Amino acid sequence: METYSKAETLELRKKHIGPSCKVFFAKDPIKIVLARGQYMFDENGEKYLDCINNVAHVGHSHPDVVKAAVKQMELLNTNSRFLHDNLVQYAKRLTATLPEKLSVCYFVNSGSEANDLALRLARQYSGHYDVITLDHAYHGHVTSLIDISPYKFNQLGKEVKKEFVHVAPSPDIYRGKYREDHEDPAGAYADDVRNIIETAQKNDRKIAAFIAESMQSCGGQIIPPAGYFQKVAQFVHKAGGVFIADEVQVGFGRVGKNFWAFQLQGEDFVPDIVTMGKPIGNGHPMSCVVTTREIAEAFGASGLEYFNTFGGNPVSCAIGLAVLDIIEQEDLQGNATHVGNYLCGLLKEQQKKHSLVGDVRGAGLFIGVDLVKDQIRRTPATAEAQHIIYKLKERKILLSADGPYRNVLKFKPPMCFSMEDAKFVVDQIDELLTDLEEATQIRPKNSLPTNTQSKRKLPTGGSSQLESNNENISPINETICRHENGFSGESHAVPCKRIRT
Amino acid sequence: METYSKAETLELRKKHIGPSCKVFFAKDPIKIVLARGQYMFDENGEKYLDCINNVAHVGHSHPDVVKAAVKQMELLNTNSRFLHDNLVQYAKRLTATLPEKLSVCYFVNSGSEANDLALRLARQYSGHYDVITLDHAYHGHVTSLIDISPYKFNQLGKEVKKEFVHVAPSPDIYRGKYREDHEDPAGAYADDVRNIIETAQKNDRKIAAFIAESMQSCGGQIIPPAGYFQKVAQFVHKAGGVFIADEVQVGFGRVGKNFWAFQLQGEDFVPDIVTMGKPIGNGHPMSCVVTTREIAEAFGASGLEYFNTFGGNPVSCAIGLAVLDIIEQEDLQGNATHVGNYLCGLLKEQQKKHSLVGDVRGAGLFIGVDLVKDQIRRTPATAEAQHIIYKLKERKILLSADGPYRNVLKFKPPMCFSMEDAKFVVDQIDELLTDLEEATQIRPKNSLPTNTQSKRKLPTGGSSQLESNNENISPINETICRHENGFSGESHAVPCKRIRT
Repeated sequence: METYSKAETLELRKKHIGPSCKVFFAKDPIKIVLARGQYMFDENGEKYLDCINNVAHVGHSHPDVVKAAVKQMELLNTNSRFLHDNLVQYAKRLTATLPEKLSVCYFVNSGSEANDLALRLARQYSGHYDVITLDHAYHGHVTSLIDISPYKFNQLGKEVKKEFVHVAPSPDIYRGKYREDHEDPAGAYADDVRNIIETAQKNDRKIAAFIAESMQSCGGQIIPPAGYFQKVAQFVHKAGGVFIADEVQVGFGRVGKNFWAFQLQGEDFVPDIVTMGKPIGNGHPMSCVVTTREIAEAFGASGLEYFNTFGGNPVSCAIGLAVLDIIEQEDLQGNATHVGNYLCGLLKEQQKKHSLVGDVRGAGLFIGVDLVKDQIRRTPATAEAQHIIYKLKERKILLSADGPYRNVLKFKPPMCFSMEDAKFVVDQIDELLTDLEEATQIRPKNSLPTNTQSKRKLPTGGSSQLESNNENISPINETICRHENGFSGESHAVPCKRIRT
Repeated sequence: METYSKAETLELRKKHIGPSCKVFFAKDPIKIVLARGQYMFDENGEKYLDCINNVAHVGHSHPDVVKAAVKQMELLNTNSRFLHDNLVQYAKRLTATLPEKLSVCYFVNSGSEANDLALRLARQYSGHYDVITLDHAYHGHVTSLIDISPYKFNQLGKEVKKEFVHVAPSPDIYRGKYREDHEDPAGAYADDVRNIIETAQKNDRKIAAFIAESMQSCGGQIIPPAGYFQKVAQFVHKAGGVFIADEVQVGFGRVGKNFWAFQLQGEDFVPDIVTMGKPIGNGHPMSCVVTTREIAEAFGASGLEYFNTFGGNPVSCAIGLAVLDIIEQEDLQGNATHVGNYLCGLLKEQQKKHSLVGDVRGAGLFIGVDLVKDQIRRTPATAEAQHIIYKLKERKILLSADGPYRNVLKFKPPMCFSMEDAKFVVDQIDELLTDLEEATQIRPKNSLPTNTQSKRKLPTGGSSQLESNNENISPINETICRHENGFSGESHAVPCKRIRT
């Protein structure tokens, strides 16, 4: 199946692909040639359990997706200036999954195109320009979105934040400003947004939008406390702005209980704009923005046409329809609930057992395991998280670590992930945590005082392994933490003011 | 094959698709259900000759493209953080079509993503921010590109041009500032760019890039005089900026003689960044930016990863490879030369015969026919062009009219367009022009003084037809011409200072 040996592939990649495009496991990247369901296979036929590819939502290479694509490709693939049934049928089906007022679609090609268009809609509708975004947020790679993504722009050094961008604290009740012991973290985080709005207005700035992932993914698998979005929406609406829920990572039933992650906030919450992407086409490049009639009309009133060459083409729509069908037919939402709860339960057992596990949080098949060096101070266990990721790779399990300190193990597997898969990966993590704790002499919780944030020196066995995998890990310090995520390839630098331990 | 009747499709579209997304022929849109080669078929099996869909580059529903897609979809579709042969093989093949120094690729999903990334590359490399763009240019629909697209931002009213954007005159030797009778239009247009740079620098502004389509498409099928790009590149380089050639519309052998349209400028011209899109995947959402090692390294030096979820996935690359194969195997470049020359010749005969035809310009299967009410004053015959487009639609031929005055008939058909197709469409245009001239009593060239730019009242027959099709056509006036392109659905307003008649 191979045209080139792995070494040749790497060589050609170095020659012809931009060096900013990183691979997983830079020291020894994986070459994948085949994938089925929740499994990926390398050039030697080695099978990997995939815990990370939320894009392959209904399972890698799902035959029904392929069938739908081929059937439509054989007939017609053209732009949306011609009438076509697939476009309107898909729009009808997609809006049926959303609250009634979210009825108008714009089909585009990527989450980045979707979020950029969402900003254009918000600005045209409100007549304002400023955007409130969450700390550590990532909304896409085009210029307008780097501007509102602290996850990205914080890497570019000081004072790169544009004046029109306002950063609200991430509503992280484990590691953030207001925690699980706060009497009303939702209200407190929302009040921070209100304060930001008031300060902005005093400076004659006008808010066009508040944008947030319904659950922060790159930001560290953060699940905002219920009621937060409602309160924020109230403040933002009062300021003449709109609420944009970014469901690019987390939509399409991943949270199990609901089809959309923003619905976890409560039935009374309806965003003004929803953006969707990654899982929408099971890997096919497509994406969508859904909004209200009112916002759509305001956008149309400018007279400017919106034309997207590939957006909403009949093939993309056929694939989108197939994905919706499969989610329903295979009850993948049910599976996400069922397997997600089981996986979360197993991980919570790990939390009881291992002092390295600080927090386990999740909804359906979107789960984060926050590793800490110290349970009380919650010092991020960055090197340990990276070590586990690398050791799991050796054991043919693909998992990633993310968040501002890259210490959060991040589960977002294909939705066909099984109970057996869950048990298997947690067993492996259990072993690795045990080894790590033995090596680092961390045993019972909080027994070891941790008053340094520098990289822990490990004495034996696991130690040398950990060191050897530390290719891209630099210690976190108090001022700026510039590092590369050895696994995800994401590099980012963040001010560490939020390390309160 | 239909799920909905045409009326139902329209109704659902009104309900669920953003009103800014226009259809062709708004009064009586076409529903297409099938397409093959250069032909499209509506729900009643009516066959249309397609003269406009450059995206279906190697022909609609080409079986080899479908085969390549299916084969890869059945195996694997994942992101570029895993090694895969298709990615590097495609990058190798694609860069082999370009001058040697253009060796590094970034795969993205759309022309808009490509041009946005090109700006990011240019800005990071140069450390500058400002952009020089051509008048009437269109480079994409994301925020950063609306900013540099006068075709779009001019519609938004006065003073929307951002300070960092500098608009150079379109190098149009038929209708522009320096014309075919100028001794050195390439030099004169380039000198204008130099003056813009000098003025900008006096105001402490620094040029990151000059961006231009290698031939302007929406801008009116403009072919820059040879040597223009070389001179511009010299001035831009001297200012520390880079030259971005936007080949999204015009690349991949469309011009016949060369694989890339910028090569028409001469072998000594090499841009610093080339963006490609539309035809690259025959309709599959994919796109690419190619640049030099030097620029890629500078971009990488920021430390910021560039990750594009769908960009460069194995399916997109398999399709891209298939398109390159087909272009070669079916000698589509040869066909573009052969049929393009023939079509251009036939149209030039029309120019001799009909005073409505002001100019015929083209390269390969990229041809513009500039319709005028007056050969000497070159008054754009906007209503007449729209009339012809609508009448051709009745005759089952799809053609569009574009340019700042929407008076340029725009040929950019699938590359398998045949001699018979060329003869057929020109025969129909001949009849329509004859009818129009009879109706408007324009016979020999320049016999009719035209000193008004308002919509011509037509006395008989053709007249009422023309009127009835004028759904979106408003007269062009001296101050601002806000109108909708009834055919392409593009609406735009342009200051008409360039109507010199």
